[in-house]
Amino acid sequence: MNLIQFNKKKKTTSFREAVEWLSPEINNLNKIIFKLVDHKLPLISELTNYIISSGGKRIRPLLTLACAKLCNYSGDRHIALSAVIEFIHTATLLHDDVIDNSKKRRGKKTANFVWDNKSSILVGDYLLSYAFRILVKDGSLKCIDRITNASKKITEGEVKQLLAINKIELSEADYLDIIDYKTAELFSAACEISGELSEVSEQKKQALSDFGRYLGTSFQIIDDLMDYFSNEKSIGKEIGNDFREGNISLPLILCFKRCNNKEKSFIKILNKKVCINNKAIKEIIFLMEKYNVKSDCVNKARHFALMGKDCLGNFPESENKNKIISLVDILLERTA
Amino acid sequence: MNLIQFNKKKKTTSFREAVEWLSPEINNLNKIIFKLVDHKLPLISELTNYIISSGGKRIRPLLTLACAKLCNYSGDRHIALSAVIEFIHTATLLHDDVIDNSKKRRGKKTANFVWDNKSSILVGDYLLSYAFRILVKDGSLKCIDRITNASKKITEGEVKQLLAINKIELSEADYLDIIDYKTAELFSAACEISGELSEVSEQKKQALSDFGRYLGTSFQIIDDLMDYFSNEKSIGKEIGNDFREGNISLPLILCFKRCNNKEKSFIKILNKKVCINNKAIKEIIFLMEKYNVKSDCVNKARHFALMGKDCLGNFPESENKNKIISLVDILLERTA
Repeated sequence: MNLIQFNKKKKTTSFREAVEWLSPEINNLNKIIFKLVDHKLPLISELTNYIISSGGKRIRPLLTLACAKLCNYSGDRHIALSAVIEFIHTATLLHDDVIDNSKKRRGKKTANFVWDNKSSILVGDYLLSYAFRILVKDGSLKCIDRITNASKKITEGEVKQLLAINKIELSEADYLDIIDYKTAELFSAACEISGELSEVSEQKKQALSDFGRYLGTSFQIIDDLMDYFSNEKSIGKEIGNDFREGNISLPLILCFKRCNNKEKSFIKILNKKVCINNKAIKEIIFLMEKYNVKSDCVNKARHFALMGKDCLGNFPESENKNKIISLVDILLERTA
Repeated sequence: MNLIQFNKKKKTTSFREAVEWLSPEINNLNKIIFKLVDHKLPLISELTNYIISSGGKRIRPLLTLACAKLCNYSGDRHIALSAVIEFIHTATLLHDDVIDNSKKRRGKKTANFVWDNKSSILVGDYLLSYAFRILVKDGSLKCIDRITNASKKITEGEVKQLLAINKIELSEADYLDIIDYKTAELFSAACEISGELSEVSEQKKQALSDFGRYLGTSFQIIDDLMDYFSNEKSIGKEIGNDFREGNISLPLILCFKRCNNKEKSFIKILNKKVCINNKAIKEIIFLMEKYNVKSDCVNKARHFALMGKDCLGNFPESENKNKIISLVDILLERTA
């Protein structure tokens, strides 16, 4: 039975409820995060406080915490390591916003807009080095290896994405490769390190790694879909930003492939324009609707989420496993 | 006897001659560097090739190689670790040039000017993560610890520098603190890791760490002096750049403290201006000459270099030790 559909039927829980079982761990994670915010250099403390308090669901560190529970881990190293994952992610966001020249994220002005590009670059660099210091303090060469590898792949993914800017002919396979590097890799590392800490079998570690990777892919597809199909309030940024920035994501790839010649020419012309108005974005969305792009993207996201959840088949039935699966479903329901 | 003065008298060797004893190691270092340039993503290969071939003396990795020789190290781990040091330094340069909006470095257009800020930020991030991957492959937790700590301190130093922009009342002590973080720390790590590899005594490791730190301080003072007192060709960038960017370095600090009230007002007004012409820079340099700033900065640099060289007193007399000392003197002679 399709787990997502099954869970969708009984859809009763909110995201907050879906992570309640992790409350003690989340509190401890917050302590590490707010220790950073206490930095004696005002720029570091103010800017990190700003970006960290601007929310976000902290999905990546939550996955580390959740997977540790799945593995019946009894120590406390997962807390610091989950903070490492969050700091690496936050560092990436800071640099991304400078690179994309973004003005809004999660409904708030971006740090580069409130401060300046310099500050965002430097505090991003600082966060990354701070994350590595926590990692070194933990002392596991295997975790250092896994996370630094993820960090390198994220950057390669960002470069791949930069090289693909405005390439309207990008294939679905190329897109999947880019998001595997820039997003799925960190999800994968976030889950796998909990297996590492818990000293589970190599097979289970691989299962956690794959679970994270599929979930990350699914998550990014939904994220890219929401860029076109969400109301501005719920994602906290303008609709059609990806199109404006020349970022060719799955909805546009599918739409372009399915368009007739006239529509293809229209998209190509828009793709070359520097300034794109809301009317043009609406026309693109009209084409996406015409070609069933939204529901196909949702189905693709579900496909990867299901693959992810089935990876957990390597773990015996447990209450924690059910809770992780519910969490995955809640994440996917963002499109509802 | 003042070693620098002693060596200055017999000043016969060039920088190239002073590093000739390290040729085999330098060749192996270049192999690692050019392996990076072969990256399959064109942006990474082209941009790293550009910045790496644009020269620079590679002083930091040379120090790692030289200190390994001083410790009679017989393995080959120092080669990869020296590359790590160079990559971290290069990553910093890439981000610095974006932050300072620089157009020229070492006589060539900066990467952010030839490509764009996005590319420089991303390739900087990539270089850093690539460096950490080499470090993890080496596998020494102590080296990872030392180098990630340096990386964190460099970023804190950059933040300190950013917070001090246009603060004309900056003290000499504050300046020394900033350059300790942003420059001397990596010199210190570059030297100390060779002691780590060679398993010398803790006392010797500390001596290498201190040697690098003093040398780095001395090096930065000379660098900051050359920003005002060099001809453009030899440093490959415009004179007075630091003043234009509001970067308050030692020559300006000393000059400002020594100025009379009228001159102080003049500097304060200039310091607040957005656009500063060459005539203004010449007037600042005139004041620096009036107050003996140049020779005092050189003497301060010599003071730190001498402290550095005396740290090597913990090592027995040897041919290699003499060669390191000659190298230090050559570095200082940049002001000649």
